[in-house]
Amino acid sequence: FLPSQLSLLYKWLNSFPFLFLSGAGYHSESKAKEYKHVCKRACQRAVDRLKAGAFAVEAVAAALVELEDSPFTNAGMGSNLNLSGEIECDASIMDGKSLHYGAVGAISGIKNPVLVANRLLNEAQKGKLSAGRIPPCFLVGQGAHDWAVTHGIPPCPSEKMATKFSLSAYKRNKRKMELAEKMDTGHNQTKKRRQSSENENGSGCLDTVGAIVVDQEGNVAAAVSSGGLAMKHPGRVGQAAHYGCGCWAENACNMNPYSTAVSTSGSPFLASEDRVLGGVIVLRCCRCVEAQPSQDIQGALVEFLWSHTTESMCVGYMSAQDSKAKTHISRLPPGAVPGQSLAIEGGVCRLMSIVE
Amino acid sequence: FLPSQLSLLYKWLNSFPFLFLSGAGYHSESKAKEYKHVCKRACQRAVDRLKAGAFAVEAVAAALVELEDSPFTNAGMGSNLNLSGEIECDASIMDGKSLHYGAVGAISGIKNPVLVANRLLNEAQKGKLSAGRIPPCFLVGQGAHDWAVTHGIPPCPSEKMATKFSLSAYKRNKRKMELAEKMDTGHNQTKKRRQSSENENGSGCLDTVGAIVVDQEGNVAAAVSSGGLAMKHPGRVGQAAHYGCGCWAENACNMNPYSTAVSTSGSPFLASEDRVLGGVIVLRCCRCVEAQPSQDIQGALVEFLWSHTTESMCVGYMSAQDSKAKTHISRLPPGAVPGQSLAIEGGVCRLMSIVE
Repeated sequence: FLPSQLSLLYKWLNSFPFLFLSGAGYHSESKAKEYKHVCKRACQRAVDRLKAGAFAVEAVAAALVELEDSPFTNAGMGSNLNLSGEIECDASIMDGKSLHYGAVGAISGIKNPVLVANRLLNEAQKGKLSAGRIPPCFLVGQGAHDWAVTHGIPPCPSEKMATKFSLSAYKRNKRKMELAEKMDTGHNQTKKRRQSSENENGSGCLDTVGAIVVDQEGNVAAAVSSGGLAMKHPGRVGQAAHYGCGCWAENACNMNPYSTAVSTSGSPFLASEDRVLGGVIVLRCCRCVEAQPSQDIQGALVEFLWSHTTESMCVGYMSAQDSKAKTHISRLPPGAVPGQSLAIEGGVCRLMSIVE
Repeated sequence: FLPSQLSLLYKWLNSFPFLFLSGAGYHSESKAKEYKHVCKRACQRAVDRLKAGAFAVEAVAAALVELEDSPFTNAGMGSNLNLSGEIECDASIMDGKSLHYGAVGAISGIKNPVLVANRLLNEAQKGKLSAGRIPPCFLVGQGAHDWAVTHGIPPCPSEKMATKFSLSAYKRNKRKMELAEKMDTGHNQTKKRRQSSENENGSGCLDTVGAIVVDQEGNVAAAVSSGGLAMKHPGRVGQAAHYGCGCWAENACNMNPYSTAVSTSGSPFLASEDRVLGGVIVLRCCRCVEAQPSQDIQGALVEFLWSHTTESMCVGYMSAQDSKAKTHISRLPPGAVPGQSLAIEGGVCRLMSIVE
């Protein structure tokens, strides 16, 4: 990788809660507009929760729900269909304060997978189950669905989660696959199969969504949700549900002055891959105090960055004092090859509260 | 943790392939004997494969098959039953040469979960699927089972995988849970539920099995397999199937002279846990050359260690020139509290081949 683009934005904000979210993939002009709207709504939802006194982890879940509910993202509603024409979602969430983590993989028939992940996290924080059993933090498939319903999360018929777009993409992909396999039949089958690596997921979308939040107390949280690859094998779990891969959040502690939250998307990094498609959003903050003539200003220095090797990535961010979220479509520079070039953008801001 | 036991064994061996495996948990004297036998057979199987020219990753899979087939380990045959009385297994394998990784989670009706993980790894190494689809590396539940059967791995009726021991443990656990929940009914329900953390998995077994191998070319590989916690919720996936958690293998490269292979077992480490039960086996090796009057001796310096916070851990190890494996039950010192003390043992050996 060669960083192909690096720009920094410096900002000064006056209040604490901060949210940052993204979807990495390809965004046409018309899709970009929809995306920006969704990002704005998601930021607003999270900030509303933060203003009402919610912790970072609750706010990050609220943002994800909004992103999952959009039919334009590859998460929750409108997710890519798998090989059998079904929707199976991955999601995970991490609380930087307790380091607790919740995740679901290949879950069907639930509108908001992140709410199941969040509920797993909440239940785990309560401690052991009866007879000393360790509560689960990662559930998959039918077991995850059943656990969710038992814990009051309503099931959603799968056909309601598919959209016109996802259904037509499925039909297109199916035809493409059949054609590719027909062409492969006969001599050189294996070789050809292994070479036909172009247009990867061309008709699906890679738009995993993620968010990272810091709250008034300086707690950080991160979450990620994804419908996974189009035409994936049933039961396939992607990195959005992998511990330490899809998201990470860790509050500052005695040994480390920085709180960090990260959310990622994309295919796993392999030594042999020549093209890696993905995106990441990162937030790092530390406390700072500034002496003023009349009073001390306590606050946090927040560094944030987004980076992607996909053609584009939509990001939104908002602090509690902003009247609305800022959104931005980051694109690789003209001529750059997705998967072989990297765009990095970021900023620094100081969030303050006044101590008398 | 305070290392409560630290001893080093120094060995000089004459040939290359090296295998090291373990099961962490509690081993009574009678169980210890069975365990040692299983470890010996597993070592033998892997070394046989290595002598026949197999790579590390094939050898490590062969060792795991033997460990899974034993009714005494909590992996494959004889695994812990979940809340519904079913067996759902996790397994993963990693090849240090390609860094490819394969894993299955909550898979039922397959005698050797590690073979499915290994097959996923092998298929992924062949490259993309038709129409440029990325092959799966982690499959769960029904989808994992169906993929395995499609790829020629025979299904195994679940009732054949349960043993007299696992069935009676299930009944005992079920009664214990019902009793605990009956006692909780009434006032103070939540509080009591959260306090009853004793005898955790007392009637199940925690004996996840793992192995690490270095082959004649210096490639390393690691694998792990587990039936998971007794009475776990259906769909629960444990660390044995988590990327970067259950096992890791990484060959030496330009930037790092050491090849490393690790396999772990145990419950996830959380900031709030006061007792952490688990075990780990680690192998690290680097190439070395020793000048002799008549010829240069090329070889590898292999460091290996095992460590556990469980009451005991059974380890076995063998090189290609050994006529049989060495086995050892490592125990916490008398009076040490499992989960609060740590035993570490290890050794160094030099594996050599003569260059004319």
